[in-house]
Amino acid sequence: MATIDFTKGHGTGNDFVIVADPDGAADLTGEQIAALTDRRFGIGGDGLLRVVRSSAIDVGAQTLDAEWFMDYRNADGSAAEMCGNGVRVFVKYLLSAGLATLAPGETLLIGTRAGTKAVTLSDNGFEVDLGVWRPDESEVLVRGRGLPVARPGLGIDVGNPHIVVALPSVDELTQLDLTVQPHLDPAPPAGANVEFVVPAEPLVQDGVGSIRMRVFERGVGETLSCGTGVAASALAVRHWAGASAPDRWTVDVPGGRLGVRVVRHDDGEHVLLSGPASLVFSGQIALA
Amino acid sequence: MATIDFTKGHGTGNDFVIVADPDGAADLTGEQIAALTDRRFGIGGDGLLRVVRSSAIDVGAQTLDAEWFMDYRNADGSAAEMCGNGVRVFVKYLLSAGLATLAPGETLLIGTRAGTKAVTLSDNGFEVDLGVWRPDESEVLVRGRGLPVARPGLGIDVGNPHIVVALPSVDELTQLDLTVQPHLDPAPPAGANVEFVVPAEPLVQDGVGSIRMRVFERGVGETLSCGTGVAASALAVRHWAGASAPDRWTVDVPGGRLGVRVVRHDDGEHVLLSGPASLVFSGQIALA
Repeated sequence: MATIDFTKGHGTGNDFVIVADPDGAADLTGEQIAALTDRRFGIGGDGLLRVVRSSAIDVGAQTLDAEWFMDYRNADGSAAEMCGNGVRVFVKYLLSAGLATLAPGETLLIGTRAGTKAVTLSDNGFEVDLGVWRPDESEVLVRGRGLPVARPGLGIDVGNPHIVVALPSVDELTQLDLTVQPHLDPAPPAGANVEFVVPAEPLVQDGVGSIRMRVFERGVGETLSCGTGVAASALAVRHWAGASAPDRWTVDVPGGRLGVRVVRHDDGEHVLLSGPASLVFSGQIALA
Repeated sequence: MATIDFTKGHGTGNDFVIVADPDGAADLTGEQIAALTDRRFGIGGDGLLRVVRSSAIDVGAQTLDAEWFMDYRNADGSAAEMCGNGVRVFVKYLLSAGLATLAPGETLLIGTRAGTKAVTLSDNGFEVDLGVWRPDESEVLVRGRGLPVARPGLGIDVGNPHIVVALPSVDELTQLDLTVQPHLDPAPPAGANVEFVVPAEPLVQDGVGSIRMRVFERGVGETLSCGTGVAASALAVRHWAGASAPDRWTVDVPGGRLGVRVVRHDDGEHVLLSGPASLVFSGQIALA
């Protein structure tokens, strides 16, 4: 039974077990990852980030422009493409461990299963370019326990599918019971994360829009924060706000505050997510 | 900002942060304990066990017959008297750290706010004498979400108050929704933990009674295991089973299997709880 070193970190409460495996010598089985991320019988976490050189992992899509690859695994051991909060924690770890450097104005490239992602320093921690977003044009009716009426939701695709629902008040957001999965009509074929948002009053101050959000993650339940859900929420409210809407947003989630920025590139509008990342503790655990 | 060493352990899924402080030099504030036991922003745990010499802590009730005192704190930082699962994890830590020894047939005394507790080795891990139990004679009507009808509950006091409810089938136990607090009528003044139990069929084999249990802990919600709740459940079923009921029981909880034994002493019937204890990982964390 081998003992491994690990670090635990989080970004706005979205938490991860981090395992350094630069040379790809210690890939973990799904069972080991599930055991490590179990909150009572293991270390606990929403997922696991294996730190491996791009040259030491074969994931089909090559990301050799990035020295480091974020091998993101869900708590059940399955591989996931990207995680907006996870990538900040990953970068924080690289810097803390002396595996990379990042100065103001510089860009650090990180390999992921969704391709290479660019990370920069921001006022609010780290900012990652999530890539091109698009509305998926769908409108669904959303029912939730504690909501007085069914409300329309807007589909947004930021690499994974989201349905964003505007609520009229913080009271209604607070009373929403997300221990029960919201009901979507019609139900998207592959499901969707569902975000409930309340615009601030006023919505825009000093050129920055502001919203509050809670999220029900597909297959998980309510979480303290969901990076792509935060981006989707800001994009939906920006869409509803019309042509004069700003490109900068702050989104308050139960786990903290994140920033969203929209930047036009040749290939379309990119959405960027910024926020804090913390390393909480390090330790040693025996692998079963 | 001081960095401290810690160990994480659990007994049937009831999990604890363990901090060694032999000389009582590093008492933790309630805020620090709440931060350490937070499952996303800290290490995570149902509670914290500070390992301190009885001579180095003043808790009113002296436990100087025990070298080591289990300073048990709830996740919110408040002090608690005893914890049936915690004391096994505490002993496992003492043995692992070389702070105590325990051979078959020997007894290790542990100081707690509920007095000195005797721990021995058992087939099933460690066994702790929880002391004298008594029925509190109360009968209440219990309603729970997912229960088809209201059912009677029996009051049992094993140092803290419990209401035990018998269900007719494992199906009914499984369908019970403990995300919602069961309703007690009349409500005990200080509340109570509520245990739902299903007797095995046959109830007794080879002189050992067998039940399955789920528990809603007062102020917490459903947990994977509750040591005193396990004891109360076995005692209630033993009471219902009448004069021929055995003194040995096994209780299956979501987090594993525990044993309960009733032993007559001069001061009354003692209830003893046995079960496994695991140390999962060790680490270092900065105290805020």
